[in-house]
Amino acid sequence: MSAVNILAIQKRTYADPEQNIEAVRRMAELPGGTEPDFIVLPEIFTCPYDNRCFPVFAEEEGGESFRFLSALAREKGAYVVGGSMPERDGDRIYNTSYVFDRRGALIGKHRKVHLFNIDVEGGQYFRESDVLSAGEKITVFDTEFGKMGVCICFDIRFPDLFIQMRRAGAGMVFVPAAFNMTTGPAHWETLFKSRALDQQIFVLGCSPARDETASYVAYGHSILTDPWGSVLCELGPEEGVLSAQADLDRVDSVRRQIPLLDL
Amino acid sequence: MSAVNILAIQKRTYADPEQNIEAVRRMAELPGGTEPDFIVLPEIFTCPYDNRCFPVFAEEEGGESFRFLSALAREKGAYVVGGSMPERDGDRIYNTSYVFDRRGALIGKHRKVHLFNIDVEGGQYFRESDVLSAGEKITVFDTEFGKMGVCICFDIRFPDLFIQMRRAGAGMVFVPAAFNMTTGPAHWETLFKSRALDQQIFVLGCSPARDETASYVAYGHSILTDPWGSVLCELGPEEGVLSAQADLDRVDSVRRQIPLLDL
Repeated sequence: MSAVNILAIQKRTYADPEQNIEAVRRMAELPGGTEPDFIVLPEIFTCPYDNRCFPVFAEEEGGESFRFLSALAREKGAYVVGGSMPERDGDRIYNTSYVFDRRGALIGKHRKVHLFNIDVEGGQYFRESDVLSAGEKITVFDTEFGKMGVCICFDIRFPDLFIQMRRAGAGMVFVPAAFNMTTGPAHWETLFKSRALDQQIFVLGCSPARDETASYVAYGHSILTDPWGSVLCELGPEEGVLSAQADLDRVDSVRRQIPLLDL
Repeated sequence: MSAVNILAIQKRTYADPEQNIEAVRRMAELPGGTEPDFIVLPEIFTCPYDNRCFPVFAEEEGGESFRFLSALAREKGAYVVGGSMPERDGDRIYNTSYVFDRRGALIGKHRKVHLFNIDVEGGQYFRESDVLSAGEKITVFDTEFGKMGVCICFDIRFPDLFIQMRRAGAGMVFVPAAFNMTTGPAHWETLFKSRALDQQIFVLGCSPARDETASYVAYGHSILTDPWGSVLCELGPEEGVLSAQADLDRVDSVRRQIPLLDL
């Protein structure tokens, strides 16, 4: 029970929610025939990544996109790490990832802890905190493969969060994430390699496909890194699926070879 | 006062202490003529990196190699981050780095906190803990450029240590380090890039030169990374000096552009 089949869907993002759901449905049909254990979606897969869109497309927990993800998990008999979507809760909006088990039951919910505020000279500007509220805790959930974690995009810049998830038992962490054309080429691969290497875990990043016409241009490059800090699989910028296997026995094996952790 | 000139000496390691000191003296004569602010030596520069050598070559604080480093700092009018050497303290031996100011006064002393114990299948085996004792705290010291930190080799695998040094005010961290032919190609560059990127600091690694005839073959590749996570300068495996400038204004500049830290 140690080999986990992962299908990460690097889809384009549309302004029309129906089109986004249709794209996920289409791309979840894995080429080849291996049954995925985990289907993973990108950050903010239900609407454009744009502060003006978050209030318009925000849904409460249990809303239409939530029910779609639950149904997808049940139909496929797979875990679904539902990328993220703007979640409305009273007056507040969060950047939220829902995780469903193979029967479609909600088993994890992560609200992005570290909001994405950057202003790079000659590069990317964005301030999520103008519109979004921040989550306050890490998220770890149980599977038959052991515990796993989920966090969102900018969260990956914080080693503390990964130390906490690993201490809580996570052997693999899913990271729906939309880096951009400034931070993607500069930091994406280093961050995924180093979080995996430091905590001796698998880390899976799922990005939207690059769309040069969008107000925020995602980097793409969905990626799977292993407990040795190696890149097992990485997409380019275009729409596509990352289909890969993570052998979780590698977690204990690497930890025996280089004993780093207070386990 | 924000540009720091660094001279890292990637020397071979000899069994004869005299030869080691002679090599440092020779290589500290910077080609070109820029006066270094910091002269940095590799991990265990006074004897072969070998558990059998540590008890034989260990010196108490204030011993011959210590006095040589202090004199070097005074002669050059430069800070000296004295790589490391086996330090005897009663019944115990530590892997210790001494830091001297421009007048040769001791201003920092770091005992390697995380001892190097690895057993990689088909790769490197080493157990420092068979012979050495571990230090217990981070080390940060004052300069006219602001606070800086020092840690040793395996210590770099622990993000916690770097979080603590950055919180204590370090804008730059020196890491005398001897990675090997297993972990060097796999992890060296990722670790130096990610520690710099995560804490938005400069990180300088100084390795011994590669010597294929040694019982422990060092990777070399002395390196300087910046707060953006970029490699500013990196040597190959051979003996040589890394001569580079770190513009410490970049620390605040990057932190303004990507505000990550609880400062």
